[in-house]
Amino acid sequence: MQKHRELRTRTHAAFLTQADAMRPTLYRQRVMPISVVNMIPDALTLHGWRSEVRFTPDQLSQQTFASGDEFIVDFGQHCVGYLSLRCESAGSPPDAPAHLQFIFGEISAEVAEPFSQYDGWLSRSWLQQEDSYLDVLPVEMTLPRRYCCRYIKVRVVSTSPKYGLRFPTFHLDTVSSASDSTLQQVQIADPLLREIDEISVRTLKNCMQDVFEDGPKRDRRLWLGDLRLQALVNYPTYAHNDLVKRCLYLFAGVTREDGMVSSNLFMQPQVIADDTFLFDYALLFVATLEDYVAATGDRATLDDLWPTARRQIELSLQRLDDRHILRDSEDWWAFIDWHEQLNKQAAAQGVLIYALRKGIQLARRCDNANIAWLETTLERVSQAALTHLWDDEQGFFVSGEARQVSWAAQVWLILGEVGDVAFRRQLLARLQRHPPMIKMHTPYMMHHFIEALLTHGEREQAVVEIKRYWGGMVQAGAETFWELYDPDNPDYSPYGSKLINSYCHAWSCTPAWLIRHFEL
Amino acid sequence: MQKHRELRTRTHAAFLTQADAMRPTLYRQRVMPISVVNMIPDALTLHGWRSEVRFTPDQLSQQTFASGDEFIVDFGQHCVGYLSLRCESAGSPPDAPAHLQFIFGEISAEVAEPFSQYDGWLSRSWLQQEDSYLDVLPVEMTLPRRYCCRYIKVRVVSTSPKYGLRFPTFHLDTVSSASDSTLQQVQIADPLLREIDEISVRTLKNCMQDVFEDGPKRDRRLWLGDLRLQALVNYPTYAHNDLVKRCLYLFAGVTREDGMVSSNLFMQPQVIADDTFLFDYALLFVATLEDYVAATGDRATLDDLWPTARRQIELSLQRLDDRHILRDSEDWWAFIDWHEQLNKQAAAQGVLIYALRKGIQLARRCDNANIAWLETTLERVSQAALTHLWDDEQGFFVSGEARQVSWAAQVWLILGEVGDVAFRRQLLARLQRHPPMIKMHTPYMMHHFIEALLTHGEREQAVVEIKRYWGGMVQAGAETFWELYDPDNPDYSPYGSKLINSYCHAWSCTPAWLIRHFEL
Repeated sequence: MQKHRELRTRTHAAFLTQADAMRPTLYRQRVMPISVVNMIPDALTLHGWRSEVRFTPDQLSQQTFASGDEFIVDFGQHCVGYLSLRCESAGSPPDAPAHLQFIFGEISAEVAEPFSQYDGWLSRSWLQQEDSYLDVLPVEMTLPRRYCCRYIKVRVVSTSPKYGLRFPTFHLDTVSSASDSTLQQVQIADPLLREIDEISVRTLKNCMQDVFEDGPKRDRRLWLGDLRLQALVNYPTYAHNDLVKRCLYLFAGVTREDGMVSSNLFMQPQVIADDTFLFDYALLFVATLEDYVAATGDRATLDDLWPTARRQIELSLQRLDDRHILRDSEDWWAFIDWHEQLNKQAAAQGVLIYALRKGIQLARRCDNANIAWLETTLERVSQAALTHLWDDEQGFFVSGEARQVSWAAQVWLILGEVGDVAFRRQLLARLQRHPPMIKMHTPYMMHHFIEALLTHGEREQAVVEIKRYWGGMVQAGAETFWELYDPDNPDYSPYGSKLINSYCHAWSCTPAWLIRHFEL
Repeated sequence: MQKHRELRTRTHAAFLTQADAMRPTLYRQRVMPISVVNMIPDALTLHGWRSEVRFTPDQLSQQTFASGDEFIVDFGQHCVGYLSLRCESAGSPPDAPAHLQFIFGEISAEVAEPFSQYDGWLSRSWLQQEDSYLDVLPVEMTLPRRYCCRYIKVRVVSTSPKYGLRFPTFHLDTVSSASDSTLQQVQIADPLLREIDEISVRTLKNCMQDVFEDGPKRDRRLWLGDLRLQALVNYPTYAHNDLVKRCLYLFAGVTREDGMVSSNLFMQPQVIADDTFLFDYALLFVATLEDYVAATGDRATLDDLWPTARRQIELSLQRLDDRHILRDSEDWWAFIDWHEQLNKQAAAQGVLIYALRKGIQLARRCDNANIAWLETTLERVSQAALTHLWDDEQGFFVSGEARQVSWAAQVWLILGEVGDVAFRRQLLARLQRHPPMIKMHTPYMMHHFIEALLTHGEREQAVVEIKRYWGGMVQAGAETFWELYDPDNPDYSPYGSKLINSYCHAWSCTPAWLIRHFEL
């Protein structure tokens, strides 16, 4: 266990009370199995397995299973919810307990590959499984935790030679705070874009729980970077704006002693700020608030939360050196993207500039006194980026002491509107013609690239990229969009195993916003 | 799974209602750990392990455990009950679930040897374990099942590098329907006999639950052969006579269609007769009823249950051939003892004669009309045993076609009082001078041998045998007496693994009755 530094936090009770009052209703839907399947190794599929129907749900309810037998139930869709089943004995009265093992998989590989071989560096406790010992049969069971799955593997570890097991009922009760009745319908002409929109919406829905979770399998937590994108997608889809408001109040409700918002919050047993503080995520609080106010015109929330937003800007400026460039460091100070080699300095400078622009929008609504200061600051840090980070010879922004050229740096400084439009359009074109070695690794980073294309008029190229990237997941069978997707490296995981990746992840649901907002 | 033959049963609702009305109170007692221990391989101890104190319970509550750590809690005594504990995180907020594994051991070997190596033929679901996945910390947990243990091994399978686990509270709430307040105190001069009595009483207590269970770890079920011996021990100890009555009504409450009582009953989800019917166990219903009536004088119960008792005798007589000797067979028709080579014929003839004598006692109290018939029958089957089973040359009763000589056959025919007292005393003496190859394997069979010694005046020899056999378990560290004990073969198990043996077993608690009833 790492040495824990004591974290001093400040709690804003009124904000937490406000957040608590907006706790959402969770809507339940029952989902029945569509079939019982076998998983067949298949090198042609993305994660190495395809499913093959073994029998129907009706046949499942009539089948008797002995020790060592197993079956994989396919629910036909990605679900977040609670498993209930009835288990009965067949044969003599059960003369020993029954031991059942349940394995839950968002994707086929999770139920096809043994967890015992897992060697990733994220805790193996994320692998979704449960062991049940049944002393009395028949029994109606609801497993204790919320699971995230399309597939459930049930293994009859042991009964006795005198009896077997039957499963006459088997279903999931899914939960989400998104209600289908509020989903806004739009006409999308392109069939693939329509499908991508649909999967984006499903991804968002399955992440909408008590808060906007990053991923319902993992981390099941409220992360600011994810929240900002989920909120954006929410406005033209479920429009559950109170859930965004709730999450903003939660972040403002527990901050570091100096007022910095955490990168993420735990909701249980009470609201706790994680001790991970990230430069870019804190600044995205400003952007999330601005998006919310723009979407809702909610002045009361703006008045409450503007001081928190402004504080993120103030704190971020402390990291500027006397050139007005962010000091770089080796530690875990900014996220930007999952990429081991990525230097974060230039991209973070872009995030700062982006947030300053959002801050100015907010100040114009409620804090005239601070407009001038923010505008001056924006001018300084933008100019500093052009002066100190731009490498004219290479035609790219560079980052860190090694003057690294990355996609992330270009994308964020373009989103920050550094340089004039012509300059930025040229940079976007160059980026695609001469792609830097340091690629984008996540749908999160890819979203920002597409947004940069769309805000610079590159609609056609944006559609090509959406279809290539998110369409690639669709083609690979995604029913919800994945935390991680590298078309060149299907098993990519920053955690050392594809089994632990999240396959329904908030930051991947943005095409619905891109398609709807930009009317693609 | 074995092919199940449909079992047709007859339910006597009034008897089950009567039994239900006598459902006992379960008394709870909290037991705290005495230490945290390591298990050290030690060839000199009976099951190959000895415990060594690692730290105190106070130290346990202050210790932080990381992924992969484990500890073994020692409660200092054999317990049957429910585990409760508090689990807290230490370090950063828990950023992944915690996965805990619990292993429960009546003896050290169960927590020292991995269950993964278990290869016995009884269902491995009897091995007591539990896996818990904790999404929210801190948590107060009570594990779902009743466990039977002195030791509990807790393995922190996984947390995350950011946090560890603490266990500030950890205790068992034991349950028993025996109340210490009713335990009859006796003076036992001999210190070893006193200790044996004490352990017998504890064994009985831990088996006294909703019914008299055979073993609280395994099978946790009401078996007739065990019930008879538990009831005997109960009279001069806890005198919880209503519990005996309850169990008699339960057996009479669900019988085979022809009226035969099952060898054992399941209590959940409702009273179910197991489809195992054993010749000797059914007859021991008669003996158990007679013992109960002798102890309590409860005439109403006698009137209710005598027809059931008499029916067992009637059914058993159907197995006699025209010589009045029981037909032998290869199937699972009588228990007698756990011994693969043992032929059951002669011993079962002894059980029949023993039960007939008990039946005559009962008929004399309530059914004069049947006395003569029972006495004639007794005379015939006793005489038949002497005529057809006695081998004068060898000086032993023989059993089956192969004319096998076993301890069990001699013991049961002596208990049946076949031949005159002098004959039986000579046979007992010969048995000890020329011990047959087919030995006794269980405390159950050993009990009957000691009872035979005591009812034939061999008090000194009986004490020697009790001290040798049960004293051997005491010396090996037993806190409750074991289902199986072969001094010559410490790891003996009829199930293929010592791990699955029961180490608190009803049929092994009889020394308390032998010592108290015969005033040893």
